[in-house]
Amino acid sequence: MSQLLHSASVRKLITKGLKSECKALKEKNIFPSMKVVLVGSDPASVIYTTSKKKFCEKIGALCEIVTLDEKISEAEFLNTINEINSDDSVHGCIIQMPLPKHLSHLDVGRLVKKEKDVDGFHPENLYALLSNNGDQHDFISCTPKGILTLMQESQISVAGKHVVIIGRSMIVGKPLAMLLTNHNATVTLCHSHTENLKDLTKKCDILVSAIGKANFIDESYLSANKNQVIIDVGMNTDTQGQLCGDVYFEKVVDHVSAITPVPGGVGPMTIVSLAQNLLQASKNRLSL
Amino acid sequence: MSQLLHSASVRKLITKGLKSECKALKEKNIFPSMKVVLVGSDPASVIYTTSKKKFCEKIGALCEIVTLDEKISEAEFLNTINEINSDDSVHGCIIQMPLPKHLSHLDVGRLVKKEKDVDGFHPENLYALLSNNGDQHDFISCTPKGILTLMQESQISVAGKHVVIIGRSMIVGKPLAMLLTNHNATVTLCHSHTENLKDLTKKCDILVSAIGKANFIDESYLSANKNQVIIDVGMNTDTQGQLCGDVYFEKVVDHVSAITPVPGGVGPMTIVSLAQNLLQASKNRLSL
Repeated sequence: MSQLLHSASVRKLITKGLKSECKALKEKNIFPSMKVVLVGSDPASVIYTTSKKKFCEKIGALCEIVTLDEKISEAEFLNTINEINSDDSVHGCIIQMPLPKHLSHLDVGRLVKKEKDVDGFHPENLYALLSNNGDQHDFISCTPKGILTLMQESQISVAGKHVVIIGRSMIVGKPLAMLLTNHNATVTLCHSHTENLKDLTKKCDILVSAIGKANFIDESYLSANKNQVIIDVGMNTDTQGQLCGDVYFEKVVDHVSAITPVPGGVGPMTIVSLAQNLLQASKNRLSL
Repeated sequence: MSQLLHSASVRKLITKGLKSECKALKEKNIFPSMKVVLVGSDPASVIYTTSKKKFCEKIGALCEIVTLDEKISEAEFLNTINEINSDDSVHGCIIQMPLPKHLSHLDVGRLVKKEKDVDGFHPENLYALLSNNGDQHDFISCTPKGILTLMQESQISVAGKHVVIIGRSMIVGKPLAMLLTNHNATVTLCHSHTENLKDLTKKCDILVSAIGKANFIDESYLSANKNQVIIDVGMNTDTQGQLCGDVYFEKVVDHVSAITPVPGGVGPMTIVSLAQNLLQASKNRLSL
């Protein structure tokens, strides 16, 4: 029987701690506050930003969704971000992706200043992760951080383990490879040009899929020993219009030792990480 | 019969091109110029800095070794670097490692400004590599760049290949993993905590060792198919006091398809990369 890595119980536990932390900060007159910049009204983006706002409020932090017109000029958009950057009452800021085409050329990772970059996308935060020289003042990208937290809280150690990650994005694959390497995992980073992918996935201890292809990973990618841990970062829609992961859950679940469900696995952990980063950003203000 | 990946012929070919480039720059009144900052008189460091100076001069560039007293104060040391940073006649600067203990706490990668960071250690240059968004204005770390150049000039393609790198340093392992991933290799980054290392090394197409352990890799780490490419980044001293790599050359040479010798393999390529970066830094000045 494989272990289902639901994030609900982990999230509940962490939420309790975050509530206490938030309360303690308020007693020191720090009111953790985040701005989520949303350009346009893409339905998925509206759902994501609303979830982030709700969770922040649940732990006692302030969160405002700054909704901007889809046709906002580049100058006005940058001006809005700069105002948030210089507003001392705001501790964290994220820009909801994707941006409309006329803004997509912007180097988004640099727009929010590193001290407020609770998404962990700023070059300085990524450098801290790469060099493993970061301290608690730096922010680790939310999805990688959430994956590590979920495994840690589920008593799955990564040290010495061989982890195969499929997908080399700057949001998941690359920062996760760095984070897990820092935690002494041996990481193989696979992608669209990887040859003989199954040879690699069958032999690893932990398989992370972050490619955005519905039900791509079936049991043919896995070891016959049924001893692997599967982390599914995918959030896709299947042919029936249902939300599904990169992993064909029903085909895989009896061939593994542990697996994250979609929904209810990695996704909610990303929001937990964001809230953790927001409280960290707020605490950092204390030491300034 | 395995192919010996001597760097001499590649280096000769590239040197010719660099000489022409250097000449063309001088005709535009740009005199490529580098400063190598050497603190103290560590014998190995003196040899390395001298080799760098010689090669720069060979292609027609200026190179000065700025030798500082081993006991120089931190303030004076930083002042020297800052003077170089603001001297418009200098295009590239490197700080020879290791630094004496009283300076070893410095975040060396940030000292030389990114426009002159021909070693490719500045956070902005590493971020460009990580994000694969860099352009010709950015500098790729010299050893990783030299390894890729040597393979490319030896008609060894990395795209789609499985590369196992042993060693996760910020000088070799990590930037090389990024560079080869950008070139569509599938990279596994191994290190001191990797379990079952031989299972990984036996199955890869290309094995890179950068661990600094004399003659560590013998034929027991390799595939019986004799079809692997071995890149030896080690510069060690064996029990007889002889220079040797991480790879036990005599035991391995007949079990592989290609292998870099030590000396004469990766080492000289690092200096070629440095000279390439210096000319790039000089050319960048033209576009400012």
